[in-house]
Amino acid sequence: MVLRSWVSSANDRDTDFPLQNLPYGVFRTGNENHIGVAIGNQILDLRGCAEQGLLADLPAEVVSACTAAVLNPLMALGSTAWSALRRKLTTLLGEESAVQETRERVELLLAPMNNATMQLPAQIGGYTDFYASIHHAERVGRLFRPENPLLPNYKYVPIGYNGRTSSIVVSGTAIRRPCGQLKPQQAEPAFAPARSLDYELEVGAFVGPGNALGQPIPIVEAEEDIFGLCLVNDWSARDIQSWEYQPLGPFLAKNFATTISPWVVPLEALTPFRVPAYERPAGDPAPLPYLNLPNRDCAGIDLTLEVYLASESMRRAGTAPMLVSRGNLRHLYWTLPQLVTHHASNGCNLRPGDLLATGTVSGPEVGSEGCLLEKRDRPEPVRLPDGEERVFLEDGDQVMFRGYCQKPSWPRIGFGECTGTIVSASVKG
Amino acid sequence: MVLRSWVSSANDRDTDFPLQNLPYGVFRTGNENHIGVAIGNQILDLRGCAEQGLLADLPAEVVSACTAAVLNPLMALGSTAWSALRRKLTTLLGEESAVQETRERVELLLAPMNNATMQLPAQIGGYTDFYASIHHAERVGRLFRPENPLLPNYKYVPIGYNGRTSSIVVSGTAIRRPCGQLKPQQAEPAFAPARSLDYELEVGAFVGPGNALGQPIPIVEAEEDIFGLCLVNDWSARDIQSWEYQPLGPFLAKNFATTISPWVVPLEALTPFRVPAYERPAGDPAPLPYLNLPNRDCAGIDLTLEVYLASESMRRAGTAPMLVSRGNLRHLYWTLPQLVTHHASNGCNLRPGDLLATGTVSGPEVGSEGCLLEKRDRPEPVRLPDGEERVFLEDGDQVMFRGYCQKPSWPRIGFGECTGTIVSASVKG
Repeated sequence: MVLRSWVSSANDRDTDFPLQNLPYGVFRTGNENHIGVAIGNQILDLRGCAEQGLLADLPAEVVSACTAAVLNPLMALGSTAWSALRRKLTTLLGEESAVQETRERVELLLAPMNNATMQLPAQIGGYTDFYASIHHAERVGRLFRPENPLLPNYKYVPIGYNGRTSSIVVSGTAIRRPCGQLKPQQAEPAFAPARSLDYELEVGAFVGPGNALGQPIPIVEAEEDIFGLCLVNDWSARDIQSWEYQPLGPFLAKNFATTISPWVVPLEALTPFRVPAYERPAGDPAPLPYLNLPNRDCAGIDLTLEVYLASESMRRAGTAPMLVSRGNLRHLYWTLPQLVTHHASNGCNLRPGDLLATGTVSGPEVGSEGCLLEKRDRPEPVRLPDGEERVFLEDGDQVMFRGYCQKPSWPRIGFGECTGTIVSASVKG
Repeated sequence: MVLRSWVSSANDRDTDFPLQNLPYGVFRTGNENHIGVAIGNQILDLRGCAEQGLLADLPAEVVSACTAAVLNPLMALGSTAWSALRRKLTTLLGEESAVQETRERVELLLAPMNNATMQLPAQIGGYTDFYASIHHAERVGRLFRPENPLLPNYKYVPIGYNGRTSSIVVSGTAIRRPCGQLKPQQAEPAFAPARSLDYELEVGAFVGPGNALGQPIPIVEAEEDIFGLCLVNDWSARDIQSWEYQPLGPFLAKNFATTISPWVVPLEALTPFRVPAYERPAGDPAPLPYLNLPNRDCAGIDLTLEVYLASESMRRAGTAPMLVSRGNLRHLYWTLPQLVTHHASNGCNLRPGDLLATGTVSGPEVGSEGCLLEKRDRPEPVRLPDGEERVFLEDGDQVMFRGYCQKPSWPRIGFGECTGTIVSASVKG
């Protein structure tokens, strides 16, 4: 039997935030940032809970972590602490379990999500972006190397690179079109606003306790180091990228902005949606032993990911955003624990609050491309409801990602939104 | 006339730290980290100075920044504040200017450098590594692409990539040989300790106030955003690198460790050693306007950089470290202000304490190669005084960088040491 919450909006069929989700975020209240937990259309003030003694039966370090202005201290505590806090919150918010008197005290600590100003959930000390979707790698590779889309290392190495943390912003922040060196074929490079601005649909994993420098994280322990997941839009300027990226990889093409969703869904909330990891086609090499999954049968996550686009004129006309892509995290060639273990395999230290993103999540089917670049494979550009066409993003375009896990027997576990709107470059093109 | 200090060791001919240098660092004293200033063989406790009222005629925010446990707050204040503090310290430590009574109070705040435990000077929120030496790019490129060593973007784009901050360590920290995927030609990849471990001789620039997201830093203002310089050893595992680096650049080959020197030399201390920027050979394109130096005649820095190597058996036998390379920062194709401006040109925000490294500094001459990889161009391996040979680093090898500016009319401005010793991998090969 599925538990219900006394917060009635949490029992709505289409809420992202039922009692079974309880994602963490940081919201502004008064002049302070507090950790909050999403429940239906409300936010439960976790610092308030701690200060009011509602968490008193939890270990002192858990209570203390709940009073911080970022999630890092909670992330550092590890999965036993996370589970204990989650059980407690389920009791406080559950229809059956909440004691009437406690419920009244908790009710005072709810704030409507509508009015809330969300902040970055953690102080992100390190951001790493991977390339874990083979469908993305193949489709993009085909544009550059039609005969040989996948490089020889792809099926052995979970390819990744260091991202930039300073320009990570929370959903809703405007995204300024970057300027950069563009090099049209047969012409000299020039500095101008990027023309080929793209989104990349990704999922991010926040690191838990992490590892000391020099100490790898064995694959059997890697899941213990994942606090939870969020949505990530790794905005990309394809024209800057194609000119700058050799030999050291993407730099200014990416680090002008990365948007993340404000809510971090605990890995535990996704347990009912675990599925087998992507099955490597016959003939593909097995992962090297250090990347060999102990639990391949439930190493994947059945998480639907969607991209919506609304141009400025659509928004002005009140036209609903258009679904332009739908994919699923289960299609990743490399699972999240493999990314964690690979990252630490050389001794590189991961720290609480570090963000590991999957890279663009694309599926095998037409319509599941996680970025506009991949759609160039298709004969037609994206056509919006009002007749506009898109090859890349225009000023005023609003891109919204959604993510959710859904099945008949369980409440929908949603990720909320990850949104950004393009504003024009600071200099003219 | 050159000013002398009443700290007598600061007047030694071969000290790195005369009155004209006054680099900043962070040292451990009691259970606390204090900002210190190197003077001769002593460290002046800057927090002590602030607390004792010795800086009382400086603006309050400068005094407050001197009491921090890292240099970030001071870096954030900008060049006017830096100059004011530097003038004050010069007065306090100068032979002529110091008042006797003050001098006695300052003397109590000196600690011998010998016993000091140095810390990272700043909390480094972002680390970017560039590729600014054309001699390095050409020599390395020749190994991979003999016909076409330099890629077409090199003379237009100051190539760089995001590094990893978590594994930046201070000079003296042991460096564990990383494990990773190695792919010998004609063999399957395997996970094993790296065999081709290398150093990279670099210079790092700490960012000052920085810029807001979306606001570029014009080239005429870029120097104002450089607080000071340090030495950087960007350790590299060449065998991991060659297998992983396509298409997104170096990752695990680099992020297992980066060593920096503890002392940050203020840019102002280097003024007497400013020289013209590297002269682009005839036929090279001019930099695009946004990278056009306003002061080409003094945009370079005449900074000598040296690499010393001491194997375990040399150290056991008491043999002095061997000089294996000597280069100079003046040979950089891209100057530090160009790196700052390029980095922010897409709106990417730089923050106080961010570290921008030059990439391997190599000169045109034989003997000025900034890493061992480049020496493979030469017919002979490096031969150590006791007869050992080195193609890459062995366990027990100690690598020491030194950097200094020197000319007849001025005291030597030194950078101290940037040292690391290789310890064996955590698993057997």
